[in-house]
Amino acid sequence: MNTTDGADLDREHIKRTTAELLAAVNASDADRCVAVWVADGVLMPPHHPSVHGDRAIAEYFRALFLQRRFWFTFTSSHIHLAGDTGVERVTYTATIWPEDDAAPIEDSGKGLHVYGRQPSGSWKLTHDIWNSDQPVRS
Amino acid sequence: MNTTDGADLDREHIKRTTAELLAAVNASDADRCVAVWVADGVLMPPHHPSVHGDRAIAEYFRALFLQRRFWFTFTSSHIHLAGDTGVERVTYTATIWPEDDAAPIEDSGKGLHVYGRQPSGSWKLTHDIWNSDQPVRS
Repeated sequence: MNTTDGADLDREHIKRTTAELLAAVNASDADRCVAVWVADGVLMPPHHPSVHGDRAIAEYFRALFLQRRFWFTFTSSHIHLAGDTGVERVTYTATIWPEDDAAPIEDSGKGLHVYGRQPSGSWKLTHDIWNSDQPVRS
Repeated sequence: MNTTDGADLDREHIKRTTAELLAAVNASDADRCVAVWVADGVLMPPHHPSVHGDRAIAEYFRALFLQRRFWFTFTSSHIHLAGDTGVERVTYTATIWPEDDAAPIEDSGKGLHVYGRQPSGSWKLTHDIWNSDQPVRS
């Protein structure tokens, strides 16, 4: 296997992890969300302090999914590989249902996913940060 | 020079670039801001679409500094090195003066800086994304 093939395989693994993250969030499944994270990952959500470590990340998603449902789509992905680290820049659109029977909110924005190669060959999230493109609602 | 010394030197270079970015923003100096960026960098500000490339980034900062002044402080920094790529996780506090004579706004949040090693040995920004820890103001 040459270097290009190795990089293509890494990109495929990273895309698989990104797709699993998306499916987990859209299914409101906190256990599935946290399964794509390393143990000492840092989730960096807008309008909320950073969430450190997989236990806190699982709790964060559990509490979030009790309040809201999401339908995210990643509208672009650019992956930069650097050894055992991958940096993915994404753009997203999202429909957010703030509570039962409330009108959904449409959002779009961008984010960075940082991935680390695992001993198994899979890639897991070490950092996830994003923000909205939309003006602040007043 | 052994690997540890090389990594220490890389961290020092990255910290120097971060310090220059901070000084440039606090001085409202768009030219100084853009000087720490690679030509094809992507700035990812909250509540604004991504800004692609150094010319657009310079224009963004010039327009921003006509509207607002900032005093940012980075309150923590964790640097992860991966070959010629550096990922820095920061936390910040900021005082923002929205316009002349208006009351300043206090903010705090976190961000990711992605740096690339340059042929000269310096490190420049390739991506910068951040968001506020504060609840959405209503």
